Formats: sequence, structure tokens, C-alpha cells
Amino acid sequence: MTSDSSNSLPDLLATINSPADLKGMDDEQLEQLAEEVRHTLINCLSVTGGHLGPNLGVTELSIALHKVFDTPADKFLFDVSHQGYVHKMLTGRAKEIHTIRTPDGLNGFLLRTESEHDCYGAGHAGTAVSAALGMASARDLKGDDNHVVAVAGDAAFTCGPTLEALNNIAETTKKFIIVLNDNEWSIDKNVGALAKYFNNIQTHPTFASIRHSAADFVERVGGKSARKFAHKVERNTKNLLIPNVIFEKFGVRYYGPIDGHDLPLLVRTFEYLKTQNEPVILHIITEKGRGYKPALDNPGKFHGLGAYKIEDGSTAAPATPTYSEIFGRALTDFAKEDKSITAITAAMPGGTKLEIFKDEVNERYFDVGIAEEHAALFACGHATQELRPFLAIYSTFMQRAYDMIIHDMALQKLPVRLCMDRAGLSGDDGPTHHGLFDIGYLSHVPDLVFMQAKDEDEFVDMLWTMKHIDDLPSAIRYPRGAGTGAQPKAKPQLLEIGKAELVQKGSDITLIGLGNLFEMAEETCRQLEAQGHSVTLINPRFIKPLDAEMIIEHARNAKVVCTFEDHVIANGFGTSVLELLSDQQIHTPVVRIGWPDEFVDHGKVDQLRQRYGVSVEAALKQIQQNL
Amino acid sequence: MTSDSSNSLPDLLATINSPADLKGMDDEQLEQLAEEVRHTLINCLSVTGGHLGPNLGVTELSIALHKVFDTPADKFLFDVSHQGYVHKMLTGRAKEIHTIRTPDGLNGFLLRTESEHDCYGAGHAGTAVSAALGMASARDLKGDDNHVVAVAGDAAFTCGPTLEALNNIAETTKKFIIVLNDNEWSIDKNVGALAKYFNNIQTHPTFASIRHSAADFVERVGGKSARKFAHKVERNTKNLLIPNVIFEKFGVRYYGPIDGHDLPLLVRTFEYLKTQNEPVILHIITEKGRGYKPALDNPGKFHGLGAYKIEDGSTAAPATPTYSEIFGRALTDFAKEDKSITAITAAMPGGTKLEIFKDEVNERYFDVGIAEEHAALFACGHATQELRPFLAIYSTFMQRAYDMIIHDMALQKLPVRLCMDRAGLSGDDGPTHHGLFDIGYLSHVPDLVFMQAKDEDEFVDMLWTMKHIDDLPSAIRYPRGAGTGAQPKAKPQLLEIGKAELVQKGSDITLIGLGNLFEMAEETCRQLEAQGHSVTLINPRFIKPLDAEMIIEHARNAKVVCTFEDHVIANGFGTSVLELLSDQQIHTPVVRIGWPDEFVDHGKVDQLRQRYGVSVEAALKQIQQNL
Repeated sequence: MTSDSSNSLPDLLATINSPADLKGMDDEQLEQLAEEVRHTLINCLSVTGGHLGPNLGVTELSIALHKVFDTPADKFLFDVSHQGYVHKMLTGRAKEIHTIRTPDGLNGFLLRTESEHDCYGAGHAGTAVSAALGMASARDLKGDDNHVVAVAGDAAFTCGPTLEALNNIAETTKKFIIVLNDNEWSIDKNVGALAKYFNNIQTHPTFASIRHSAADFVERVGGKSARKFAHKVERNTKNLLIPNVIFEKFGVRYYGPIDGHDLPLLVRTFEYLKTQNEPVILHIITEKGRGYKPALDNPGKFHGLGAYKIEDGSTAAPATPTYSEIFGRALTDFAKEDKSITAITAAMPGGTKLEIFKDEVNERYFDVGIAEEHAALFACGHATQELRPFLAIYSTFMQRAYDMIIHDMALQKLPVRLCMDRAGLSGDDGPTHHGLFDIGYLSHVPDLVFMQAKDEDEFVDMLWTMKHIDDLPSAIRYPRGAGTGAQPKAKPQLLEIGKAELVQKGSDITLIGLGNLFEMAEETCRQLEAQGHSVTLINPRFIKPLDAEMIIEHARNAKVVCTFEDHVIANGFGTSVLELLSDQQIHTPVVRIGWPDEFVDHGKVDQLRQRYGVSVEAALKQIQQNL
Repeated sequence: MTSDSSNSLPDLLATINSPADLKGMDDEQLEQLAEEVRHTLINCLSVTGGHLGPNLGVTELSIALHKVFDTPADKFLFDVSHQGYVHKMLTGRAKEIHTIRTPDGLNGFLLRTESEHDCYGAGHAGTAVSAALGMASARDLKGDDNHVVAVAGDAAFTCGPTLEALNNIAETTKKFIIVLNDNEWSIDKNVGALAKYFNNIQTHPTFASIRHSAADFVERVGGKSARKFAHKVERNTKNLLIPNVIFEKFGVRYYGPIDGHDLPLLVRTFEYLKTQNEPVILHIITEKGRGYKPALDNPGKFHGLGAYKIEDGSTAAPATPTYSEIFGRALTDFAKEDKSITAITAAMPGGTKLEIFKDEVNERYFDVGIAEEHAALFACGHATQELRPFLAIYSTFMQRAYDMIIHDMALQKLPVRLCMDRAGLSGDDGPTHHGLFDIGYLSHVPDLVFMQAKDEDEFVDMLWTMKHIDDLPSAIRYPRGAGTGAQPKAKPQLLEIGKAELVQKGSDITLIGLGNLFEMAEETCRQLEAQGHSVTLINPRFIKPLDAEMIIEHARNAKVVCTFEDHVIANGFGTSVLELLSDQQIHTPVVRIGWPDEFVDHGKVDQLRQRYGVSVEAALKQIQQNL
């Protein structure tokens, strides 16, 4: 698909320049619009990649919301906001949807800076209900009367912040709408008591007395769809319109579950709910991937993916295994030999590739839901009992467990192994997903052992080494995708803690290339040698503890030291080197190559590196300035 | 009370060298023991200070747990663990209880290093259920059969991690005991729907069908106390033994509420619960401060306090207002003039002194419970709607909201004002409460404005300045207790963002003293001048953005720069100075005075500063070495 062809939108969709343009549409037209949106999404994303399944799931919901409410006065908050593509298309961005996630194109999530209709951005789960409650509270204080609608998946209810917010709704406001978009999936299949509960709503004598308000509701919604809906109720006990006890106990009136793909019913239900003077939750049942068979058949894959063939949903197989795949495979192999190893994920078996562990060592695999704080504490519990827990969480999501890393793990010296996938630039996911801060927030945590490998082989050595660190917490960061392709050895090697690798010894310039940027240091080394310099090249391996001896030795007499890291340079790896040298009263100039002190856009990794000066050229230039 | 007198324990308590020593005691002796424990606590803490109220509330509970279960094989996890004093006394530490929170004495919280009976340490709320679940899971994997008991206050159920854990219990283990210690208080009065719910358990027709198991339970517990208990049920509808719907929905069998001061009933109930093959929660009602009238009359004050007079519970009034008091007063005054200001606390109106705001500007005061993540998101919601939210959370607890600070506030440039009380060394509370990491985790967050004041007057200027920062998030850190005593001006002054104060200009040595350590820089300056040096003295005011111009000017030609901060020196304020100078190719030696890269014990601030080298002497010595 070329950019030309994608600009030619289907008939009705082409007329939508703002939500106002769908106000006059009747049920039939709205349903036609939904079809067109789906068609456009399936086409465009086959080229750009993106979160296809979730957006196919909320197509009718997004249309119904914009039919009934009025943004930007009314506020929609989409939890995670990866399901915001349809909302983007209905708010003047349909013509650009083919640019989503491409450099300088639309962001894959909502951004306040992208549209006045995006009142809240996100990329991490569990924030929508809470931030929406703040907006509702602000509205009440100001005496305004706009509506605030939080759209959250069932998975968001495994998140602490959502549950904390739920506890505060009743005493905060009387006018608040939550849409519980229940598709039984987060990215992978949902877990936990609440997920089970959502799926087990049944007729029960204890509900008899409270069913009245629900019946009343059907009456008010009225007309054809209410009858249609009542028929559904007869057919399926799951689709009972009964107040859900948990939400009612939190002081939030429950409605549902209803069919989230029945557009007329959704419209009438929202028309009714906007008249209510109490917090409400509408439970809708949707299908992830609705309307596209490959996505329905494989919701995990189609949650978010790269380019695919429209006919069958097939994607190109990657040439080289990713770090995630190597992690999942290696840890599973270790665990088969060592019964003390456990693996914990916060709803990411697919992304972290712990699905391999799940399949092969199931009894020691734990998916706790999108609950990073609990995941970390649960791992601490394991560590106190002489187990060897590995906690795999993306670098950016590990921020959620930050307090536990300090207060529970490090302070108690509990040997939890933090495996931080997607460390460094994440590329087309953009700033909510880049893993650019983890050295900054971890390198001052006492007693933590912290590593990054220069290639896949060394990565497995490091995982093996972490398995053996039983007296302290340890952490490893590794990037999205594949590395150099270095094949792991048959038997991993135990590394000495705090010992760097001296790759090459020189006298003028010392290069220290951390992890996936070791390659950049290598290339810089080659070019400096071509210029006639004598260069030391170090693979530091350990961010903490630093190999003070080696770094001091090769910094003391060099003319300049240059560090490379896939991280912001503020409080980064290079900063630790700077601190070390300062403490040793060594005043050799230090050039630090890494990301600047700002949020980095989405885009292609190579382009972004060039744009932000994370490059061999930038290194050569700055080294030259310091010589 | 002298250390001598406190070593003379009452009769029964003196015989308890380990939990084994109370196994043979009968009901009467146990009740006598409870009296002796209370007497000892009231006496000892009148000298040392400490968490009196919570421990008087769990005296019977702690005795009953140790009567029925067997630590260290069985595991007790006390949430926050400030209520662990009685547990300490029953596990061989009664003779040392008079040393609690004193230098080299017992820690005020549980520590794994202090006793084999302390299986898990804490200081932050909401971790016990989650970590306990990890331990239960480990036990199941290993095929052991010990018990795991988590003791959590009702306030812990406003915490995300507790709720995340609750969602995972049913699918994790069959053998798990939670004690919900319901006293209606966290540190201050509890908030939220769950707290209300706990207090509103009533007879209700819908419960009829499920009351059977409860009746069955009374039968099994049997004997005198069951009859006594049945009588209580008659007397008080709150004390109904009915399964609690919320917990049951999470797959945890609910028992209670029962009287948490009825020792024989507690013992028999635990004997019964330990036979159950499903996760259970026992809801007990306790009184914070039980047995000591001043504490019962003022539970907020007696949650944790310094020395008091035993007769009437009176405490010495502090001579100088604390930073917290100045904060509460100033913000309230601002808010009276500016209707856009809101104040948000996570269950700390007393500690943060937002109680002043609560009293005087009640409609814009929000206590969300011990829910820092939600508090931060709620503040973001306010900030999107042109309000001016101030979020007051202790430095160490702000770690819980770390992801929101990056992902929600900074990335969206939302003007939330982070007010971080207890930044720097917290003294006798110890390592779980020191605020020594906030510069490390915040100074690399893009777009954040971050300050610390040298005294109380400047502090109010900074709060006033934060009120005016409407396009970016801002943060201020301030220490526990009072500062220099500098009286705030009648009208605060707007500070220029990123502009430091040049206090004195010299030529040899440049001292930069941040916040409460500015005084130490001043004293160092005096002593250096006495030695004949020409000294520049800077009050930096801004941690971010640094006043690059001023620092560069006075570093470039100095022989040495010395920074002072009440923070670890790794990724600290001095590190930012180091980074700045390195980027400018200025190689003047930088001495950084601050806390080392380790967890700092509890103790007196002055003594700890001496011990760890945060002192004028250390500064002078290191400056000398670099001259």
C-alpha cells in the first residue's frame, strides 16, 4: 500500500473531519462507518504494523462514544491508549492513519500534543480511571457539567492504580462513567480472581433484590434494541444485566454485560448513562480482532505486530532470534536443571518470551497480571525462601516496581533477578515505551549488581551468572529485537562480578561501550585507528559494580575517555564512570554518548540515533574536541 | 527511665526468651502477659518515643499468633511492621525493647537481620500480603507445610500492591491466612469505599444463604468463648460473623469481624483457621492505643511520637515550626487567594500538615488513602483541567509514584507540584524512611523543575514559585523537622527558574551547599577563610535546571569545587555538577559531600553524619586533598 492509496478513504469515513460529522448519522450509517473503519485499519496496519486487534475490538465503542458525547468538552480516557486508533480516525486524523507509528507520522498512542480530542496520553496500563477521576473532580470544583469517560480493559483491573482509584470514586464525584471493555485479554490471556469473576457472572439468588434497577434500565433504554437485548439475556446467562457486587460495594453502579459490537445498543445505553447522577460502570463484551479472521484466531499475535499479509495475516519470520527469545529459552533450560528457579511476569508471557518457560516448566511459572508492584513483592517472597526468582518486566514498566526494588529487594539484600527487556530505545512505540531511564533510577541503589551484555552469547553468560548471585539482588538490561546474532555457547560461562572485558589495549583514547552500543564503540575504535590513534576498547559488562581497577588504569593516562550507552546521559553509565574518575582525582576528559535530557520521539532506531547524536560521528567529533 | 530500670521486666514477660515460653500458658496467664506487655511498652516508649498506639492495638493479636503458630518455621508478615514491637518482645527481644529506635538499639521496624523470627522487613505499607503470597507459593513448590500469616491494617487495603495481591491469592495457594486488623485508622483516619464498607457490614437478606459456614465456624471454635462471642453478635450488628462479599469474590474465605482484644477467642479462632484448606481472611476489630487513655483519646498523635509524659501523654512542644508546618500553613494561605490550588495527600494529613489545608479549604483537599500511584494520577487529572495541584508525599514514599512522574507528568508536561517531605536523612525511623534517593531518581527526568531551599523563608518563596509554574511539573524536597528557623517574609518572592544565589564571591575554592546542607557549606566556608582561602559560596536553589552559568563561572578558575547534599552521592546533586563541568570541558576537581552508596542505619542525625562523613571535617579534608 502506498501513501497515495491509503489517502483514498472509504465513502462515509472520508466525510468525517471531526466528531460533529457523525452526529447526524443513523444506526445504519454508523454501522456502515464501522465497517469502513475496520477495512481501513486492516489495510493500513498491514503496512505500518500496530495494535490491530484492540482497535478492531473497540470500533463500535469508539463510534458510539463520539455519537453520544462531545469531545473535547467531554473527556475520553483510553487506558494504555493503544486502542485509540479509531478515536483518532473520528477526530480528524483518518487521512493520516496510514502514517501511524512511522517517523513523523501519528503516534501509536494518544498524545495531548497531537489533538485537542486527546485529553490524556498513555502507554502504560491502569492510569485511565485514576486520571479521569482527577478530571471529574476538577470539573466538579469548577462547577462545569461535562462528562468524563474512562475506557479500560478487564486487564486494567489487575493494576494497582485502577484499584486504588476505584476505592476513591464514590467519595469524589457523582458523575463518572467507566467502560469496562471485557475481552478476556490484556496482551496475553488475563489472570486473577477478578478476570475469573468477570467471566463467571451468573444467576444467583442473592442478586434478586438488586436486579430491579437493571430491569428499570432496560425499560428506559427502550425500543427495538432493548427487546433485542432482552433476547440476548434469555440466550446467555453471561449476558445478564445484573449489578456487579464488587463494583456496587465500591459505590459504583454496575450495568451489563452488553454486546460491545451492537452499535445501536451502545448508543442508547450511553444516552441513558449520561443522565445518571451517580458513578457508573458499563461492562461490555468485545472480541479482540473482531471482523478479521487471522486476528480472531490469534489475538495474542494481533494485539500488536509489524507488517502482515492481509490475506492470511502472515508475517515475515525474523532472521535472528531476539534477546527475548534467547532469554525465554535459556531460563527455561536452566530451570529444568535447577528446581529453585522461578519465573514471574506481569502479563507479558509473549513479549518476554516466558511463554517458553510456561510451556515447559509450568509449575514454576507465575503470571500475576499487569501488577508490577505485586510481581516484585511476590518475587521477594520467593527469594526469602531460597528460591531463585527471575522477574521479567520491560525496562519502562519496571518503573512501577521502583519502590519495591529499593525498599524490599535491595534493603533486605533479597536475590531477585530483574530481567529488563526493551531497555534502550524502543523505536516505533515511542516515548512511553523507550527504556531510557533504568540506569538512572537503579545505579544509585545500594548493593544491586547490574549488567548489560555486548551480544547474545555474553547475555546468556550473564543470566547464568545471575542465577548464582544468591546474596544480593541483580539486574540485567537488554534491548528490543536481536543483537549481533552471536550464537550462545553450548555451556554458559560464569562471569566474575564487577569484572570488565579488556577487548583491546591502547594508549591515547579509551572507549567503553556498554551493551548493545559496544558495536558503536568498536566502529568508533576502527575509525580512530584509521586516523592513527592508539585506542583502548573496553566492554564494561557491569554497570554496577564498575570495574574500577580496569577503568582507572585505562583512563589515568589516556587523553580522553568516551562512553557509549543506549540510555539518557544524565545519571547514565557514563555518569558512573565520571563519578569514579572524580573520586579518584583523575581528570581525563570524559565524552558521554547517549540520549539527551529530553523525551525521544517514536521512529526508526537508526534515524533517531542520527537525529539525536547517538552515533559514531558524534563520538568522533566530541573526542576530537577533547583531544 | 534509665536503661537499668527498663531491664527489670514484669514477672511473666521476664520469662519469655522465645515464643516457646508462652506455649504452656493458659488463658489467664496470656491475659496477664498482655497487661505486662502494655505496661512495658507505655513505660519504655515514654522515653524513646515510637509507634505506641499501633502496638497497644495488636498486643493480644501478637500473643495469640505466637501461642498458636511456630515461628520461625511459620511466617508472620506485619504490614509496615511498625506494629512489630510486641512480636519483638515475644521473640527474645523484651530485654532490649527500651533501646528501640535509639542508636545501635532495636530498629523501629522489623528487620530480617535482627531476628530469625522477622521473616520480612518493612516500613512502607501494602507489602505484606503480596510478599506473604510469594512465601506461601514457595512453600507449596517445596512441598512444605508451614503457615504464612499476613497481618495488615484496613489502611493497607487502600494500597495498590495489596489489591493486586488479593487478585492473585486464589489461583496461587490453598493455605494462606490474612489478618485484617481493622482500627479505622492508617496513620490518620481511613478513607475510601473499602474503609466505609468494612465499617458498614450489616445484616442483609442477601447474606442469608451464605451465613451457614459462619455458624458452622462458631460451632467448631466452641466452648466458653464461642458463647461469649455469640453474645457479642447479639449486642452489636457490626460484629456479625458473616462472610464478606468482597473477599469471597476474590476467592478468600472471610471470617469475622471478631473482637481483636479477646485473647482466648483469638487463640481458638487461629487454632481453627490453621486447619482450613483454603485462603482465609480474619477480620478483627481493635483499638489503636488500647489500655492507655491518652493514646485512645488521640490516636493520630499516638500512632508514632517522641518522648511523652506517662501521666497525661503530653509531649514537649517544638521550639521552631517544622518544614511540614510551614508547608501546610503557606499552601493553605495561597489557596485562599487562588481557587485553582488543590492539595492531595496519600493518607498523611498529619505528617505533611495538610491537615491545616483540610480544616480551612476543605473542598479542595483530597486524601486518597495510602495510594501514591493514584494520588499522582489524580493530580495529573487536576493539572489537565487548569487546576494547580500540590501533591505532598514523603520522599521515600514518592518512589511508589515513580512511573507516573515519568510517564504521566513529565512526558505530558503536566504542572503537578511534588512536595517531598522527609527528604534527606530521617534519623530514628531508619533506612526504610530516609529520603536519600530522590535526586537520583528525579534529576534525569526531562523537563522537571526541582528545588531545595536553604531555609524556611526561601522554602515559602519556592512554593510560591511552584504555584506559578504552569507549563511543567515541578518538585521540591525538604527535610524532616525544622530548619534554621528563618521566619518567612510577609509576602513570598517569585524566584527565577534555574537561578542560584551567589552568597559570597571568592577565587580559590567554590562551595555549593544544597538545601539543609547549605549551613554545612557556610561553616566550611568560615573555616576555610580562617585558613586564609578565598572562597565562593553558592546556594544553588535549583537541582534542575542547574544554574549552569554561575556554576561554570565559579568552577572554571577555582582550584576545587565542593558540593554538599543530604542525599547519596551516587547520582546526586554533586553528580549533576560533575556532569555539567565535564560537558563544558572544565576539569576542576569536584569533592562531593553526601551519603555513601549504602543503606544508612537508624540513629541520631548528627551522629550519623559524623559516622558517615557528611560533615565539615570530611569536606575540609577532601578539599585539602584536592588542592
